[in-house]
This record gives sequence, C-alpha cells and structure tokens, in this order.
Amino acid sequence: MANIRVVLVRPKFEGNVGAIARSMANFGLDELYLVDPCAVGDEGEIRAVHGIDVLKNAVTVDTLEEALEGCLLSAGTSDTITEGESNYVRVPITVKEFASRLEEYPDKVAVVLGREDTGLLQEELARCDLLIHIPADREYPTLNLSHAAAIIFYELFGDSVKKPTPADGSDKERMFAYFDELLDAINYPEHRREGTSVMFRRMMGRAVPTKWEYNTILGVFKDSVKRIH
Amino acid sequence: MANIRVVLVRPKFEGNVGAIARSMANFGLDELYLVDPCAVGDEGEIRAVHGIDVLKNAVTVDTLEEALEGCLLSAGTSDTITEGESNYVRVPITVKEFASRLEEYPDKVAVVLGREDTGLLQEELARCDLLIHIPADREYPTLNLSHAAAIIFYELFGDSVKKPTPADGSDKERMFAYFDELLDAINYPEHRREGTSVMFRRMMGRAVPTKWEYNTILGVFKDSVKRIH
Repeated sequence: MANIRVVLVRPKFEGNVGAIARSMANFGLDELYLVDPCAVGDEGEIRAVHGIDVLKNAVTVDTLEEALEGCLLSAGTSDTITEGESNYVRVPITVKEFASRLEEYPDKVAVVLGREDTGLLQEELARCDLLIHIPADREYPTLNLSHAAAIIFYELFGDSVKKPTPADGSDKERMFAYFDELLDAINYPEHRREGTSVMFRRMMGRAVPTKWEYNTILGVFKDSVKRIH
Repeated sequence: MANIRVVLVRPKFEGNVGAIARSMANFGLDELYLVDPCAVGDEGEIRAVHGIDVLKNAVTVDTLEEALEGCLLSAGTSDTITEGESNYVRVPITVKEFASRLEEYPDKVAVVLGREDTGLLQEELARCDLLIHIPADREYPTLNLSHAAAIIFYELFGDSVKKPTPADGSDKERMFAYFDELLDAINYPEHRREGTSVMFRRMMGRAVPTKWEYNTILGVFKDSVKRIH
C-alpha cells in the first residue's frame, strides 16, 4: 500500500467528512488533513463509525499549501474533463491509471478532494501535480464527495482479496473423470459424448471452481454413478 | 454497458436509497427495485439530486424473488469472505472480476445489495447466482451501503473516459530534437549528453503527454534556444 495522505479542501458537510473517515478505515488509510473545514461534531462522528480514530486524528490546517507539506506528489480530483486540451489544468488520468502508477512513488502522495458543490478551484487544481478523474456518465458526472473518495480509496487499496484455494490439476481431472463415468452410466449417446464433455470442461473453466467446489461436484457425480449401478 | 437492475433488499435509511439513485445516474444505470424498503420521502429525494428520476421510477416489491423476475443472473454482495470454503454461499469473486465478465451475459443481470446493518441474509445470498466482494481492509471491511454501491456501479461503468488526443511520433521527435538543441545551446557536457537525453525521453514516456503538451514543451525549448543564441 502506498503512503497516502487524504486532503479535504473546505468540506461543507460534517456527514461527508465522517463518511470519508469511515471509508479510509475500510481501505487501510489513516492520514486525513482538513483544510479550513466546517465544524465536525456528532453527525460526523456517527458517520465515521469505526473510522472514528481517523477522524479524531485528522489534522486541521488553513491552506492547501500547508496540507501538502511533506508530500512528494499531489493528485487533485476533478469531475470535469477538459474538452480542449489547452486547459492543461484539467487534463486528467483515470483513477485506475493513478492507482497503477502509485508504486513508482516512494514517498507520500496526497489525494486532494474539493468542496461538495464546486470541487477544487482552478488555482487549487493548478497546485496539484496531476489530476485524477473517475469515468462517469457524461450527462451527470458529479458524484457525491464521499462516493468519489470511496472509489479512489478502493482503487488505491487494490485487488488483494484473499482467494480461496484454487483447485489443482488432479482435483479437476478426477472430477472430469467422474463426469465421464456419469455419461457412461446414463448411456449418453456416443456421438454427443465428446462435445458434451468439452462443453462441461469449458463451463467449469469459466467458473474457476475452488478445490472444495470441485470435490463437492465430484462427490455428486460419484454418488450418482453409484446409485445408477 | 451491460443490462443491469439494481435491487436493494430492505434498506433502512431513505438517505442511502437516494444516494444510491444518484450514484446510479452517475454511472448510467436507471433500473432500481426496492424490496420491502423503508419509506422514502424528502431526505431520499434530496440525496438523489439529479438521480431523482431513477428514484421516482423505482419499482417496489415485497420479496427478493419478485425483484429478480426477468433477470438471467443475480449477483449478491457480501463483505464477508468465507474462511473455510465449505460455506459455498460465501465464496465470492471480486467486483472487478464480475465487471470484466459481464459482457458474457446477454441478458439482464441483477446486482443485489442488502440492508445497512446485516447485509444480505444467508438465504438471500443462497438465492443469488454469484457473490461479489469489494476487497477492503480485513480489520474493517464493512462499507457504507451507498459507498459499496458506488464502487460496484463504477466498476460496471468501466474505464471509457474520453482520452485527449495522444501525441503522434512526429510531435514527440520534434520535441526531443529541440531538447537536444537546448543541450547544445547550454553547452551541456558531452559525456553526459546521451544519458540525459535518454532520461528525458524515458520520463516523457512515463508521462504519456498529449499532442498539445508535447507542442507546448517544444515551444518552451524552441524559445529557450532562441533566447540563448
């Protein structure tokens, strides 16, 4: 996980600040800076739920400049993609691209989110080293602030879900062998045997079953064959 | 974009229902089913913002079964990854994997989200054809309902942002030629020339500048060379 600071610039609703603190905790982030924020009281704390420590340890500063101190790189967020390219301030990369490049940065990176209504101002965007953008419907690209934050944190967290044990080759082959035995047992028409066998194999291939799942299905086929005989 | 129905099972807070309607509009979705929901009034409508039509056209039903009618496939959401694999109901795929497979499904797919506190019940999960999961911190994997929804819709929407015109080879080469001229102009040490030239090229390679950006930098180098001479 990269070294991330989350910076909220002049948030107006404490509920959003709390919701963002929760979302940070969900995705393993803990460093929150608030630039000239609204007061954050009960509602913020309620919405932070188990992200309450993130909220309580938030650092409040007066300016974006102060919030970026000590960061190698700052990434602003914008829902506006520039149409012409000459407005260099608004040429963004997608949040996915940003996340995939993060490992290149050995030091702290600030993710900067703007106020709920107008986002980051042009001069704040200009201060950021790069712009990140969440692809959305062109008819209505303006996300709720904490939704945008959650999507960014999610992408930064990455795809490191613990996978169930994948099946190894022998689990698979034993299961397919029982499938073929089952076809025998039901006197499946000879001319359709190979096609059906391959189809079943393909289907399982798309499903990527776990070891446990293969063994379970194998058990079903085995018992079926037994009952038939 | 796949053909998606969003199903909320017994949501308790109208604010979440509204926020999810907004998020659906952000990501081009419009079919919302509510199973035995809380009353949705002013707060829900306020939070829907420009997703108000999604909210107003939502279909309310009594059971999950009714909500899934007409769907080819249903995908339940769960923040609990099973530890053992024998609880087949909770072996999930990630939301990214789900999104990448969606094009395989020609018909309507239901994305089913549970109540805020307990999520989907075991029997509701069992009714779903597959389970999707958002990778998150194991210490605190429970996302706010509308955040989870936003992340799923975001992944389903895909990465289809309109890219600025990429630079073509000639823009690049003209810019690099001016960079070399600039090195000449400043009497850059001969033994470091090639190294610096390559380094600059690599750096620009990582930045993937647009046509406009290349031409802008080119202009800067050109003017610098002019001023030096």
